[in-house]
Amino acid sequence: MSLRVVAPGGVGEVAEGDDLATLLLAACDADGIELLDGSIVTITSKVVSKAEGRHRVGDRLDAIDDESVRVLARRGPTSIVRTRLGLTMAAAGIDNSNVTAGQFLLLPEDPDRSAVVVREEVLARRGVNVGVLVTDTAGRPWRNGQTDIAIGAAGLVVLEEFAGVTDSYGNALAVTAPAVADELAGLSELASGKLGGRPFTVITGREDLVLARGDHGSGAGALVREDGADMFGLGSREAVVRALAASDARLFGAPAASGDMHIAARDTFGAAELTEHGSINVAVTGPATATLAGVLAHAFGWEAHASPDGTEVTFQPPTP
Amino acid sequence: MSLRVVAPGGVGEVAEGDDLATLLLAACDADGIELLDGSIVTITSKVVSKAEGRHRVGDRLDAIDDESVRVLARRGPTSIVRTRLGLTMAAAGIDNSNVTAGQFLLLPEDPDRSAVVVREEVLARRGVNVGVLVTDTAGRPWRNGQTDIAIGAAGLVVLEEFAGVTDSYGNALAVTAPAVADELAGLSELASGKLGGRPFTVITGREDLVLARGDHGSGAGALVREDGADMFGLGSREAVVRALAASDARLFGAPAASGDMHIAARDTFGAAELTEHGSINVAVTGPATATLAGVLAHAFGWEAHASPDGTEVTFQPPTP
Repeated sequence: MSLRVVAPGGVGEVAEGDDLATLLLAACDADGIELLDGSIVTITSKVVSKAEGRHRVGDRLDAIDDESVRVLARRGPTSIVRTRLGLTMAAAGIDNSNVTAGQFLLLPEDPDRSAVVVREEVLARRGVNVGVLVTDTAGRPWRNGQTDIAIGAAGLVVLEEFAGVTDSYGNALAVTAPAVADELAGLSELASGKLGGRPFTVITGREDLVLARGDHGSGAGALVREDGADMFGLGSREAVVRALAASDARLFGAPAASGDMHIAARDTFGAAELTEHGSINVAVTGPATATLAGVLAHAFGWEAHASPDGTEVTFQPPTP
Repeated sequence: MSLRVVAPGGVGEVAEGDDLATLLLAACDADGIELLDGSIVTITSKVVSKAEGRHRVGDRLDAIDDESVRVLARRGPTSIVRTRLGLTMAAAGIDNSNVTAGQFLLLPEDPDRSAVVVREEVLARRGVNVGVLVTDTAGRPWRNGQTDIAIGAAGLVVLEEFAGVTDSYGNALAVTAPAVADELAGLSELASGKLGGRPFTVITGREDLVLARGDHGSGAGALVREDGADMFGLGSREAVVRALAASDARLFGAPAASGDMHIAARDTFGAAELTEHGSINVAVTGPATATLAGVLAHAFGWEAHASPDGTEVTFQPPTP
């Protein structure tokens, strides 16, 4: 088996209103790349956003809020959020590289739809049935660096399902489901690089993943795990704050603790973003508050010191 | 720019003591694939483990424990752990597909070293300088399906660093570091598939990533984020349990809560793995215990009901 990916060069600056299919076909023609039935075309989200006029100026933090459905974790200037599209990304995927200084670029409004439009245009103009992916770059937990992932898809199997399939030893491959669209996105990054100018790639050799004409498939949404179904749906610190703030202490006959608990959570959580500004104090109004303050201190890795009279706890970031 | 990947067929069953370089070269020769200076060879961890005799029989859970340095999250039968190698994986990457039923297969002892051996053998026998990757399949948070990642590397840039590089608009690409070795691993999966028989691929077109002869580079360890430096270092539930169990309540003048807290954490945590067995009870011995029990209930999404006399709380999994 073999695969080949080609990234045509010579694609100039993409501007609002540009037709991506026209740019794609011109770039392929200029480089002698023929689109065939079963070819897979990848397009960076950046040029999709540019063509769709998703530039913004103004407060980038407001834009992140607008694009987000919730915050998973925040440390210092970094926010990891779940976006409208179900993507979990730093800064909601909002980008300020390869755009005019002072501007930033939102992700496409509906990248599956953007992919469908290009697929249908290629079919209409060249009579060939291709699959189309819209790609973006994302970090991930536990591993350094970023990989490209699929955020939009048309006419493509994005997840291969081997449930019920057995290997040559007869063992069921029950939980194996290669996220082929993400692997194809990574492949496109290898071919096009990060310095701009090659927003398209054409991949051949996995014609089996391209669906029949007119069948646009699941889109990239099939790669998004349902919110709430993930073991890592909150950062380690945020999980503790959320649990403390949202649990209903009154149920257990300790109503006085509830308000204090909220305050402790809010203050300590806020303070985590102000590590360099030194310590904060939390008033101890009862044993539950004291205990919860200790829980938060642990979650944040802060040192906690009780005042001699036991009425106040001082939290301090660890000395580096 | 273009890349090509070829997965030679005809590789038979790999057994303990087999020489991987011999198998690789024979498979390439049989399929007419020439290794060149700058080619990148990928090898699945499965055949590395088989050649190195990493089969085990016995208690799979004991083996997972042995391979793990810590548990990040656990739900039902699934444990996400950090392994000796710094990989965060379900079941420590221990595999029971494509092996004889009743056996399982540990990850290679030192996959960077395994990659170096193959690289040096290819150089010695064919006089060509290739990069070598050992790949494995891993799930990831937030997205469905698995992708292949690099767990061992020799003679290869695994992470491209663009710090200090500017794009054509003059914006710094400060945090961009494509994890190219993981993208290459994904590419190898696309070419070889999941049903066995094609453990090797040969990738051409990214000769720039292959280091000079004798320079084996960082290995795949450069892709592993340092433990403790991740916002998602514990599952959302486990973060709460850990914070409750490890914080020192005695510091705040509530020594009686400490022991109860440990019990609540242990019992509730344990119970989360026994959802199908119904409810558990926690004795309420003071306001701190009651509050903490409420926090745990929230973290696990359990319903909590206080007894009429307030001395006991019953936790129940949510009715489906």
